[in-house]
Amino acid sequence: MGTTYRDAGVDIEAGDAFVDSLGPIVAKTRRAEVLSGIGGFGGLFQVPSGYRDPVLVAGTDGVGTKLKVAFRANRHHTVGIDLVAMCVNDIVCAGAEPLFFLDYFGTGHLDGGQGREVVEGIVEGCVQAGCALLGGETAELPGFYARGEYDLAGFAVGVVERDGILDSAAVRAGDVLIGMASSGLHSNGYSLARKVLLEGPDADRWVEPMLTPTRIYVAAVLAAVRAGGVRAAAHITGGGIGGNLVRVLPEGVSATVDPQRWERLPIFDAIQEGGDVSEEEMRRAFNLGLGMILVVDSSAADAVMDAIREAGEEPMLVGRIAEGERAVHWVEGSA
Amino acid sequence: MGTTYRDAGVDIEAGDAFVDSLGPIVAKTRRAEVLSGIGGFGGLFQVPSGYRDPVLVAGTDGVGTKLKVAFRANRHHTVGIDLVAMCVNDIVCAGAEPLFFLDYFGTGHLDGGQGREVVEGIVEGCVQAGCALLGGETAELPGFYARGEYDLAGFAVGVVERDGILDSAAVRAGDVLIGMASSGLHSNGYSLARKVLLEGPDADRWVEPMLTPTRIYVAAVLAAVRAGGVRAAAHITGGGIGGNLVRVLPEGVSATVDPQRWERLPIFDAIQEGGDVSEEEMRRAFNLGLGMILVVDSSAADAVMDAIREAGEEPMLVGRIAEGERAVHWVEGSA
Repeated sequence: MGTTYRDAGVDIEAGDAFVDSLGPIVAKTRRAEVLSGIGGFGGLFQVPSGYRDPVLVAGTDGVGTKLKVAFRANRHHTVGIDLVAMCVNDIVCAGAEPLFFLDYFGTGHLDGGQGREVVEGIVEGCVQAGCALLGGETAELPGFYARGEYDLAGFAVGVVERDGILDSAAVRAGDVLIGMASSGLHSNGYSLARKVLLEGPDADRWVEPMLTPTRIYVAAVLAAVRAGGVRAAAHITGGGIGGNLVRVLPEGVSATVDPQRWERLPIFDAIQEGGDVSEEEMRRAFNLGLGMILVVDSSAADAVMDAIREAGEEPMLVGRIAEGERAVHWVEGSA
Repeated sequence: MGTTYRDAGVDIEAGDAFVDSLGPIVAKTRRAEVLSGIGGFGGLFQVPSGYRDPVLVAGTDGVGTKLKVAFRANRHHTVGIDLVAMCVNDIVCAGAEPLFFLDYFGTGHLDGGQGREVVEGIVEGCVQAGCALLGGETAELPGFYARGEYDLAGFAVGVVERDGILDSAAVRAGDVLIGMASSGLHSNGYSLARKVLLEGPDADRWVEPMLTPTRIYVAAVLAAVRAGGVRAAAHITGGGIGGNLVRVLPEGVSATVDPQRWERLPIFDAIQEGGDVSEEEMRRAFNLGLGMILVVDSSAADAVMDAIREAGEEPMLVGRIAEGERAVHWVEGSA
């Protein structure tokens, strides 16, 4: 008897019911600036008071093929944390306090349980980052994704005082590099890591370690900035330590990192050995144990390390800035 | 020898080259508040001056299965406009001026030409909406999307003076409904529309009309608000006129819309006849010719209609608010 929207693969009521069910979870991320009960087509957030010249900082990112590991394990909570982490770790590199986050969840057929796990992870990430989950879109797209699969995109907005923006122009010879330990692969390098670890004989052993969520460095970076002396911050994602650290080097200086100053987690050795991956490729594809690197005035290093430790992250003095040609060098030695 | 990231299906250099190539296009959306040359991990946007109590309004959306039509036609420009339209038409419903936009483009294998067409459409949408394209993520996810396919997510942030937020609480009996003409399906109802129109004998005839971009009502809504008397605005998307108009009705009032007051475009008749779709289902799935509806103080209706016309949209008096039980009624008669 005629074609309905449901015949065509989309169930509007089920989608609405799913979104309604998220209200109590999302409420955990509530901030005082969120205006609710008014408007209705967008999320409303009052610009925080107390800023003389506020600048908004916005970023978007996804989780990448790490999602394939979540599909395999049928565990969808940690990739929600990753989604927030990838965005807020970027915007805190400008010195910005994350204010709010929105997510896009695209799937072929909405599985409410799976979607709820993802949103619970997103909420956990927002709580860690101190930002409100202000909105989201759940898109049911028949024929776009394989059964049980989905893609995620995240958007974060933060605020920073204009004269407090971290800017690579301030970086100078003599500054030190303070790294913060990563929890594992974070959300980059999964195409390569999956090929090596999940197509091998020990595949089952690596699924859990590959789902460890990305660390959220917001509290630690903001504490370090308050301690004083932080010139710039680099979130270590695709492109690795070199590819991201170079982004905060102005003309005329180079950075030297010493890999013996931090611990290389076992998962990186397993990938390198299992896939016969060159050291150069490892450095380009993975964070190798550092998820965030701050460039700090050397006289402030101790105070910044203390502030990071107090905020719950593990700081390590991993290198130095010198005069040079805007490049990142590695101290070679035992890998 | 050994596994590289490129073997695993991801080419970081090609992705970087693609992103770099977008710079000159994106520059067309530049606004004075965009701070460039500093920061680097996020996009920076100064909160516009002149607001006493600024409230940010944020929204996220995708284009849905309209993308399948773009894949079929191998035309990717108009869906970029749709992506911006879906987001900015939402936030302008709060009375907010769009400030900036970010996009997420997820694909299995980056096709630079296709990606560029999408971004050109996004840029056109941002120019129409008056907002800056502040950032974006191009995610290459091998194994997620069928060859030549992709998904898009958009994210828009706007600003409105707190005491200028459009709010359904202001709606009262006696107000009038002013609709603005849509250009066709906009970005909703495509699962049903594709099933009926693109699986039938006249499929080729409908591809182009199905790719008509969503109208962007930002200029018209903001002009109407400046004219005075606008109480609320409803962006007509999934759920149709009834499903969206009800969102701006407070308790104690109902809305009546008279479908004889506007033109029903031929594409809607083709879907209804081709698919034997009930009128009820048509009303729930499609905008049926109205893309935006304003609730306006009746004494201001003429001035608001003039302002909308001057801004380039086609306003129509399509109904009225009365006391009632928070529902949308249709004047029945000839369909």
